[in-house]
Amino acid sequence: MDYGKLALEAHQRLRGKISIKLKDDLSTREKLSTYYTPGVGAVSSFVAAHPDKARDYTWLNNSVAVISDGSAVLGLGNIGPYGALPVMEGKAMLFKHFADIDAVPIVLDVHSADDIVAAVKAIAPSFGAINLEDIAAPICFEVEERLKRELHIPVMHDDQHGTAVVVLAGLINALSVTSRTLEQCRVVIVGAGAAGVAIAKLLYKYGAPEILIVDSKGIISASRSDLNTSKKELLKFTNPSGLSGDLKTALRGADIFIGVSQANLLSKEMVKSMAKDPIIFAMANPNPEILPDDAYAAGAAIVATGRSDFDNQVNNALAFPGIFRGALDNQVEKITDDHKIAAAKTIAALVEKPNAKEIIPSVLDDRLVPAVAKNIT
Amino acid sequence: MDYGKLALEAHQRLRGKISIKLKDDLSTREKLSTYYTPGVGAVSSFVAAHPDKARDYTWLNNSVAVISDGSAVLGLGNIGPYGALPVMEGKAMLFKHFADIDAVPIVLDVHSADDIVAAVKAIAPSFGAINLEDIAAPICFEVEERLKRELHIPVMHDDQHGTAVVVLAGLINALSVTSRTLEQCRVVIVGAGAAGVAIAKLLYKYGAPEILIVDSKGIISASRSDLNTSKKELLKFTNPSGLSGDLKTALRGADIFIGVSQANLLSKEMVKSMAKDPIIFAMANPNPEILPDDAYAAGAAIVATGRSDFDNQVNNALAFPGIFRGALDNQVEKITDDHKIAAAKTIAALVEKPNAKEIIPSVLDDRLVPAVAKNIT
Repeated sequence: MDYGKLALEAHQRLRGKISIKLKDDLSTREKLSTYYTPGVGAVSSFVAAHPDKARDYTWLNNSVAVISDGSAVLGLGNIGPYGALPVMEGKAMLFKHFADIDAVPIVLDVHSADDIVAAVKAIAPSFGAINLEDIAAPICFEVEERLKRELHIPVMHDDQHGTAVVVLAGLINALSVTSRTLEQCRVVIVGAGAAGVAIAKLLYKYGAPEILIVDSKGIISASRSDLNTSKKELLKFTNPSGLSGDLKTALRGADIFIGVSQANLLSKEMVKSMAKDPIIFAMANPNPEILPDDAYAAGAAIVATGRSDFDNQVNNALAFPGIFRGALDNQVEKITDDHKIAAAKTIAALVEKPNAKEIIPSVLDDRLVPAVAKNIT
Repeated sequence: MDYGKLALEAHQRLRGKISIKLKDDLSTREKLSTYYTPGVGAVSSFVAAHPDKARDYTWLNNSVAVISDGSAVLGLGNIGPYGALPVMEGKAMLFKHFADIDAVPIVLDVHSADDIVAAVKAIAPSFGAINLEDIAAPICFEVEERLKRELHIPVMHDDQHGTAVVVLAGLINALSVTSRTLEQCRVVIVGAGAAGVAIAKLLYKYGAPEILIVDSKGIISASRSDLNTSKKELLKFTNPSGLSGDLKTALRGADIFIGVSQANLLSKEMVKSMAKDPIIFAMANPNPEILPDDAYAAGAAIVATGRSDFDNQVNNALAFPGIFRGALDNQVEKITDDHKIAAAKTIAALVEKPNAKEIIPSVLDDRLVPAVAKNIT
């Protein structure tokens, strides 16, 4: 199926994938006077006096801004705000479809951390929550951290945490299928961008004792002189034995490979060098670090990818709809690591009999959103 | 009818007046792959390479941001972004109802001209046009001017120009009913805020030779020492004979009173002091500068107000839906004075037989939006 061609045709035909719908009509003068002037004046006065009640009188209780500066769009890189807009409209569709959330695509014409933070803070009273999307590392880390600290509504960079939650969910089941605990495992994460870093942090928080992160220059270790501030931060909780070297070195004897990097990076030989029954999450898009058949042939016990045409799809849409649904409904101010771990456990538990071909539930599973939302409190 | 009570009840029941609607469903994996990844990648690549085509593949062709900092909301004053939100959602309803435009309420937590301009510019690629709303004078003038200069999409502060267009439309018919031309008239505008200034500018552009603007301190004249920069600017095209004094002085012998000020400001005696058959636009909200019955009793030929329960309602909703519809459809980059005058003439012409009780068409007239839009080219 040539989805690119199909998409170009469908987008040109629809000229936008979302629209605004009114919750009541304006067919009478009475309704005009109720929803607009003069009636709305009483609502504005009330809300101005009780801003904490704004969510009960406006769409704040159900609205999310999907915000990107277009600096890291899908696998396309820094293609700018206009290039990002079709993806953000698509994300808004997912929010509505999966969680009945009213999401508005906001693409930014500013790109420094300071400017992105200023713009998002300026418009923040318009929305009930903020979903950051496709913002490049390392700026995405500072942007999210500052916004979380300075705003009183939930802020989540989905490329980081949506991915991390689903990876943890899949790992929980993969470990149970292979009768291991995370405490016994060495985890190698390839890719130190938004997703890689968030996965490392969440697995550490969940108890992984030995995590190595590998970027294009090799294992992130204290012996390297080329690390930026955000990579140096990673040394606080990864690479406890101070290993240095390349991906091959990292993988020798490792139990778990988590790839958020690029196609064909992982060879059969590398899989063979890992511990017995290795777990492989090869999530490079659109082509994984190793094809599942090759990984299995080299001895992998379980393989997950980002693709819907293979078993075990790691798909952010398993996590973010329920997380935001719960955050909005339960008036959560900050989405914490505990929320993410609760979401991962909930997602994992929806697979009734985990096995190598099914460690992750289907994104079409109706139980997902309410189950995840219930635990975001 | 207690619209305030009705409004509080309705808003609390609906919890927001607008929502997001999808233009197609996401019921199959094929649709997910068309509207989101992997298919949407082809659309993003194409749009990034041809940003001028973004409107054909996204909702840019039909989306408007309704933006306020909450500094001058209705007659309530500076009540902040949360207080403004119910009004902006209401405005979004009007956009959809009257012109099928998808409008998104954006309320800002910043209030200086620099910060508002920066925030709007940052999010501008997300929308096809910008409707500024309820931003206090004089900041609103600088904000609109800079955004018009620096953005390549239509920007209009509706409190200024929507009102000005409808006033001009009403005046065109009022002058014809009273067999006068604007060239023969002295116009007195009371109120030097957003609407008053915009009305003055548009009437001048349309050919009014003698305009006096009166604020709370009296006629705006060179003899005053308390004028801020934006009021000094008004002297370039108002008060040609250098009159100074109070409202009474201004009105003596004047033909047209245009009030955007406060209730009960205009006495019968003042109306009597005006030229024969004076035209009175008493648009203070919710109570006019003079009640129509009193004005007629004092000799007024025609009275218009902002209220729907009197004849001749000056209502912005007569103008902005068609103006934005036309600007979006005809890919207009800037809304100019010529556009506003064309809109006013179009609105005026829809009244088939203008008379004292009908100089302005009904906001429910279906011909309005297409007729106005056709002339915004």
